[in-house]
Amino acid sequence: MEEKDCIFCKIIAGELPSAKVYEDEHVYAFLDISQVTKGHTLVIPKTHTKNIFETPPEVAKHLFERIPTIANAIRDAYQPLGMNLLNNNERAAEQSVFHLHLHLIPRYGKGDGYSPNWHTHENDYTQDDLQKIAKEINLQIK
Amino acid sequence: MEEKDCIFCKIIAGELPSAKVYEDEHVYAFLDISQVTKGHTLVIPKTHTKNIFETPPEVAKHLFERIPTIANAIRDAYQPLGMNLLNNNERAAEQSVFHLHLHLIPRYGKGDGYSPNWHTHENDYTQDDLQKIAKEINLQIK
Repeated sequence: MEEKDCIFCKIIAGELPSAKVYEDEHVYAFLDISQVTKGHTLVIPKTHTKNIFETPPEVAKHLFERIPTIANAIRDAYQPLGMNLLNNNERAAEQSVFHLHLHLIPRYGKGDGYSPNWHTHENDYTQDDLQKIAKEINLQIK
Repeated sequence: MEEKDCIFCKIIAGELPSAKVYEDEHVYAFLDISQVTKGHTLVIPKTHTKNIFETPPEVAKHLFERIPTIANAIRDAYQPLGMNLLNNNERAAEQSVFHLHLHLIPRYGKGDGYSPNWHTHENDYTQDDLQKIAKEINLQIK
């Protein structure tokens, strides 16, 4: 299960320290040291997998099954106004540790440390364009 | 299952149009009309649930189980350099439709439409602070 030189595998194994929030058979949750907002937590599968593209459905299932519980615990502890879940895959999407991880980022209002830059392109596509794109993706479902 | 006046429930029911990417017993995936990047897809549970805080573990599990398949289909169709998964809960976290949804945002490089503003606070917390926060959250796990 453990991947040599993976810092998250070492955290799970107790070979590196962490501020542990939760642990069970399938997942390990701990504070992100960057604490983008207070209570910012990472949830990772115990099974090493690089990112979402390489994650078996079984591993994905067990990971997300626990997210409502952990999200509600953060909310109960600190009463944020909301929460973003974020998962980055590959360097072009800001992945920096190559063990699948989901960020739980409680939100406390503007300027709290996190916000998305989000540029919409809805005027660039016709309904026909969208149907064509949807079909091209659907054809790749395996 | 269907919530009156929920536009995503209406999309699932075929009462509103969508560019459908994938559908099975548990989930429905369709293009986000905003197309922040090409292939930007929303994956939603067929069971109406407002957001992650109110989502039963069973619903969460089935939703995420399908994400690797859909993420890989987008990758196979358009060869993005990476992908961000994003889920917004409550208005303070930019949730605008109150039916749980996960954004799959393929990434093609800088200026493609999406990037996070991410302000770290790692110098604001000691190791003792982090252990205290982790414990406070853990005490709320139910």
